[in-house]
Amino acid sequence: MLLGMSVIDDVLAANEVYSRTHELRRLTPRPERKLAVLTCMDTRLSIRTLGLKTGDAHIIRNAGGIVTEDSLRSLVVSHYLLGTEEFMVINHTDCGLMLTTEEDLRTRIQNRAGTAAVTPAFFYAFANIEENVRHQLQKLRTHPWVPKEVAVRGFVYDVASGRLREITG
Amino acid sequence: MLLGMSVIDDVLAANEVYSRTHELRRLTPRPERKLAVLTCMDTRLSIRTLGLKTGDAHIIRNAGGIVTEDSLRSLVVSHYLLGTEEFMVINHTDCGLMLTTEEDLRTRIQNRAGTAAVTPAFFYAFANIEENVRHQLQKLRTHPWVPKEVAVRGFVYDVASGRLREITG
Repeated sequence: MLLGMSVIDDVLAANEVYSRTHELRRLTPRPERKLAVLTCMDTRLSIRTLGLKTGDAHIIRNAGGIVTEDSLRSLVVSHYLLGTEEFMVINHTDCGLMLTTEEDLRTRIQNRAGTAAVTPAFFYAFANIEENVRHQLQKLRTHPWVPKEVAVRGFVYDVASGRLREITG
Repeated sequence: MLLGMSVIDDVLAANEVYSRTHELRRLTPRPERKLAVLTCMDTRLSIRTLGLKTGDAHIIRNAGGIVTEDSLRSLVVSHYLLGTEEFMVINHTDCGLMLTTEEDLRTRIQNRAGTAAVTPAFFYAFANIEENVRHQLQKLRTHPWVPKEVAVRGFVYDVASGRLREITG
């Protein structure tokens, strides 16, 4: 960060401009298309690649697009409180969590931070993306609060081609 | 969901169209503006309200915009692996988690699902939004892996006006 410059201050100025028209004013809290998407926080992901508009879906994002206690909580709230009926889990190629291991990641951060930490207990690094997607689907499908009527499907998004590929089984 | 119709199938068809041009092809995994935003999965939130473009920032989203073990993991990965230097935490007015209590939410879901579940252990329902934002900031600022050099600032987004309001202290 350059001295005296803050991106957050720029964001506040841009929000002031946005609020003059507030085009999203009419959206309701219930996802229009009854869809919840769990995906990665990565810069290269956007609802645009899915043909979705703001308001269509709940978007849940964490490092990797992993089913954790927190993303599960979000999906459960999404379904029971706000009526979503389909869950998409999307991992992507070239994910930061694929370029490392659990051990290596913890060591690097500890060294940089100069101190250990108890939480987060896991980083969810992974080597095989198809396997990783299947594992996330399994966690959702076996959870007592994810009803059988909710469609749970998993995908790999290829950042080079822009294409989704479904992972079955 | 109407019989035989699936939103996810529509998304796949839309992605096929998107991939023909793949306008986001040139983005890099490092957030252009070195910013990470933690906010809610709510339908009414969009980077558009922040004047951000895809690629500018890491976007982390869960029910509420809560600092959990998982969102903390994501922010830590964002900073140490991908170089973000500012964290924005954004809660919003009319959040589903404000209209309920921890107890009520658990009871409603258990009754609908017909079964109890151990995880998620908490839903992070809250009553006072300013207090809630402050609590999230505190969790971040006191974590050993969030360095002092990282700017950590908190906001309430008003879904009626489209404006961000900073929460200090």
